[in-house]
Amino acid sequence: MQLSQTGEFGLIKRICRIVESQSDEIVLGIGDDAAVIRPKTGSCLVLTTDALVEGVHFDLRYTPFDALGWKALAVNLSDVAAVGGVPAYALISLALPDKWTVENVESFYRGLKHCGKVYNTKITGGDTTRSGSKGFISISVIGYVNENLIKRRSGAKEGDLICVTGTLGGARAGFEALREGQDKNLFKKSIRRFLKPAPRILEAGKLIRELPVSSMIDISDGLASDARHLCEQSGLGCILWEEALPLHPDLKVWEEKMGTSPTRFALTSGEEYELLFTVNQDRFDSWINHSQGEKRVPVTVIGEIVHKKKGIRIKRGEKNVSFSEKGWDHFQK
Amino acid sequence: MQLSQTGEFGLIKRICRIVESQSDEIVLGIGDDAAVIRPKTGSCLVLTTDALVEGVHFDLRYTPFDALGWKALAVNLSDVAAVGGVPAYALISLALPDKWTVENVESFYRGLKHCGKVYNTKITGGDTTRSGSKGFISISVIGYVNENLIKRRSGAKEGDLICVTGTLGGARAGFEALREGQDKNLFKKSIRRFLKPAPRILEAGKLIRELPVSSMIDISDGLASDARHLCEQSGLGCILWEEALPLHPDLKVWEEKMGTSPTRFALTSGEEYELLFTVNQDRFDSWINHSQGEKRVPVTVIGEIVHKKKGIRIKRGEKNVSFSEKGWDHFQK
Repeated sequence: MQLSQTGEFGLIKRICRIVESQSDEIVLGIGDDAAVIRPKTGSCLVLTTDALVEGVHFDLRYTPFDALGWKALAVNLSDVAAVGGVPAYALISLALPDKWTVENVESFYRGLKHCGKVYNTKITGGDTTRSGSKGFISISVIGYVNENLIKRRSGAKEGDLICVTGTLGGARAGFEALREGQDKNLFKKSIRRFLKPAPRILEAGKLIRELPVSSMIDISDGLASDARHLCEQSGLGCILWEEALPLHPDLKVWEEKMGTSPTRFALTSGEEYELLFTVNQDRFDSWINHSQGEKRVPVTVIGEIVHKKKGIRIKRGEKNVSFSEKGWDHFQK
Repeated sequence: MQLSQTGEFGLIKRICRIVESQSDEIVLGIGDDAAVIRPKTGSCLVLTTDALVEGVHFDLRYTPFDALGWKALAVNLSDVAAVGGVPAYALISLALPDKWTVENVESFYRGLKHCGKVYNTKITGGDTTRSGSKGFISISVIGYVNENLIKRRSGAKEGDLICVTGTLGGARAGFEALREGQDKNLFKKSIRRFLKPAPRILEAGKLIRELPVSSMIDISDGLASDARHLCEQSGLGCILWEEALPLHPDLKVWEEKMGTSPTRFALTSGEEYELLFTVNQDRFDSWINHSQGEKRVPVTVIGEIVHKKKGIRIKRGEKNVSFSEKGWDHFQK
């Protein structure tokens, strides 16, 4: 059905049917001028927003609408996790081109709702409007964080280890596999990671409780770029260890087929939504020794924080080289 | 300067210089993954979001960037006012086409900051990204409301008076004057109202404290449309009184020049950001009698709430006629 057939207010009614969530703390939900929430007491509020633009951040030729809904929310949840918070509410702002159908929008909202359900985030409002030619999605998430558990980009200390959760490079491999029309079965895991990333909310909470995490950021622009942000905001340098980078298993397949260096993918792959964090070396060693065998968060040490003068480099064999590979900068061409 | 020359992160630094606001309750501000706020205790949170799309909501041929920044925030603040709240924080999501310059974006942010300063709203974060061809702006505002002062669209009672703040039709007159290239001096006030609307935050607070306001909405789609929303959500009907509509002074000039009916403008003009509310008749009469001579909020009674069966009509001379003029529906053509 065309959007013009249902109209703005008809569409909003359909969206309400999908996302409606009754909850004691929602005093006023979707359908009024604004939502009203009875907030949790004793916590700080986390506020974040992220936009996805058609043709810049997503391509509908290989992105199903439900995955788009999932991802649009997940990228915001990852930002909440990166400061040590838990998400609670989401506001959805959508500008819809005429070519999107009512069913497309419903599918988008179902993916969004699914992600919200998995990560305890309630959709409490939004704005739905027309766009000229391209779809535009902006989501804001409101969450909570205990004030003394807040993690900043700027807290790293010289000598700290640099750690990362999970593996790197998968999102880029999945994106390239889709873009180049590769056999989807060969890149199942990386395609899933690209289309439906899993924000590390639980993992962030666990790490912060168990380790003296000194700084944290999520990898959205790429390791090369985000490590730089963390170092610059901490006023320090770093040495990453090429051999230590935890490579996504699909990078092996990609290397065999296309000859692309897995390290390059691991360094530059944006939209990974893994956590990059720093921690005191001694405390980390004792954590590793004492948590063996238990279900601990998958973490790899990939480098160390050094003095600013030593720059931002990667150890390749015996040499420390500067890396020029850029993460995603939305305005550079 | 072109956006590609400064790059995403360079642009963010420039924006930070404009909007940077130090404040005790902002624990973590712009430049990290998310903002963190120490919230006011004892209040509910108000959450709202509104998007403006180039070519749909604004036209750069006659909208200066600083006015655009002001308006993008003001329309959100109006939503907070409509539920009885006060705004506190804003998140700014921008997708910028290549044709916008760094100076354009800075000017946008200066207008935004000015509006925030006037209405006590701090810019605490955002996302800035590239857009293909058109600019997209989505702003979310977080505010506070006392739980027993929340105003819903759904609270109107049969027999209540329907009131509106200020005047109607000016935003439409201003828009048409700009679009048709009319003499700007003739339509100074209405152009200002269209470009830089004033959200009724103080007025909403005052009205709610002084009067038993039973329901409230802000006029963003147009009186015809928003009165309908209020009635439908209250499960009631209404009679508006044509002769009572408070017309913006510029409508007279417009009528003389173009022959367009002022009532039509008053009914269909969106983006007015006046408050439409309902109130018990006796209590209103006593308020009017006791507040004469004092500085009271400019309010006009424009109709009454009736049983649902009587429909949604306007009294024109001796007849009650249904009005078909539609407010702004973003998907109808």
